[in-house]
Amino acid sequence: MSIELYELVGRDDRRFSPYCWRIRMALEHKQLEYKTIPIRFTDKHLLKFSGQNKVPIIRDGDNVVSDSWKIARYLERSYIDRPSLFGGQVEEAWASFLNIWVDQTLHTALIKLVIADIMEHVLAADQSYFLESRTARFGKSPVEVQTQSRKNLRLFDEVKSTLRSALGTNKFLAGTNPSYKDYIVFGAFAWVRAISDFVLLDREDPIYVWRGRMLQLFDGMPAKSKGYQI
Amino acid sequence: MSIELYELVGRDDRRFSPYCWRIRMALEHKQLEYKTIPIRFTDKHLLKFSGQNKVPIIRDGDNVVSDSWKIARYLERSYIDRPSLFGGQVEEAWASFLNIWVDQTLHTALIKLVIADIMEHVLAADQSYFLESRTARFGKSPVEVQTQSRKNLRLFDEVKSTLRSALGTNKFLAGTNPSYKDYIVFGAFAWVRAISDFVLLDREDPIYVWRGRMLQLFDGMPAKSKGYQI
Repeated sequence: MSIELYELVGRDDRRFSPYCWRIRMALEHKQLEYKTIPIRFTDKHLLKFSGQNKVPIIRDGDNVVSDSWKIARYLERSYIDRPSLFGGQVEEAWASFLNIWVDQTLHTALIKLVIADIMEHVLAADQSYFLESRTARFGKSPVEVQTQSRKNLRLFDEVKSTLRSALGTNKFLAGTNPSYKDYIVFGAFAWVRAISDFVLLDREDPIYVWRGRMLQLFDGMPAKSKGYQI
Repeated sequence: MSIELYELVGRDDRRFSPYCWRIRMALEHKQLEYKTIPIRFTDKHLLKFSGQNKVPIIRDGDNVVSDSWKIARYLERSYIDRPSLFGGQVEEAWASFLNIWVDQTLHTALIKLVIADIMEHVLAADQSYFLESRTARFGKSPVEVQTQSRKNLRLFDEVKSTLRSALGTNKFLAGTNPSYKDYIVFGAFAWVRAISDFVLLDREDPIYVWRGRMLQLFDGMPAKSKGYQI
């Protein structure tokens, strides 16, 4: 029986959760059969079986696991005969470090550039939920938060510079082959691609080139998902 | 002829520059002969030969290199027959990522806890320089910046939590043996140890245990350097 991945969905089947993308990529990496169950923000009552209300969640037979990091660890440990997501315990520790950095730094920089664009791409039923919950979180509306101001662009420039350091001259963040580290970072770019036409990266940027490689993985599954051709 | 390392010095021969510590550890790791040239803040005129005014600087025959990251890369490339500092180009990229993170995050959190203690440990000739330059940088005096307030401690707690993720259950940040990644982070703890008796780490903290391992490297050179027994 294939694994079920509960995944956030917006208009036109856009999948725009960075955390769900990490798991989608991880399931592909592990060469596991899976199907996705699209979930709207206002579908949270459907997630009660998981004991919490956030996606991603996977249901794997009798096992239900939520939280992208816990799911990645679960998959790594449950399917040890499949390609490793981390490549050993030292690399797993560094992936967990990166996991924190991306949430605190990359996502924080991106949200300021695209949050209002998210609102344009959630399903009609979710729009007032998104507006209210985000206005409560930021103390102002998404339209007020999203400013592609010099300050916000400079913040993202710094983050890009740090990311370029991590990539160096390597093909993937993990070296010659992609690993969960790449999926952690790619989740952010897949999220933005799904909901915004804002051009985050110059075409000469090594991160843009890496992103192109990521989009072509797994028979181009990421490139085929609904999003902007940026 | 041995390599010269120009290194910041305070009262009682305390070596308290995190960046100089990175290079001291790197020279030991590479098993290179070196001697240190102690430099006070107000000795900067002695550094003119390097084309800039910051330590660490190394003089290796005709080669003069400044900036800790550049020095580490120089040593790695010039002494390829010696133990590798990075362990390959993928790991070198991750070390450069960590290098940025430590400067932006770990140092920023620590400075708020110990900056006034630095002033107590610089040489008499340096005290007014330190007071004036730091007051200009922070917009208030070191005594006003240094507050072991709940807010500043919570910030450092977050940083420690992220560091614990990077360490995982491994002996060193790089795995079973130390590498330049360990020296980048250790530089911060060696700096604080030299100038402050403030207890940064519980003895049960995996970072404390790791720090203990670091202090014993290279025949206990770091442990023997002048500092507080914390």
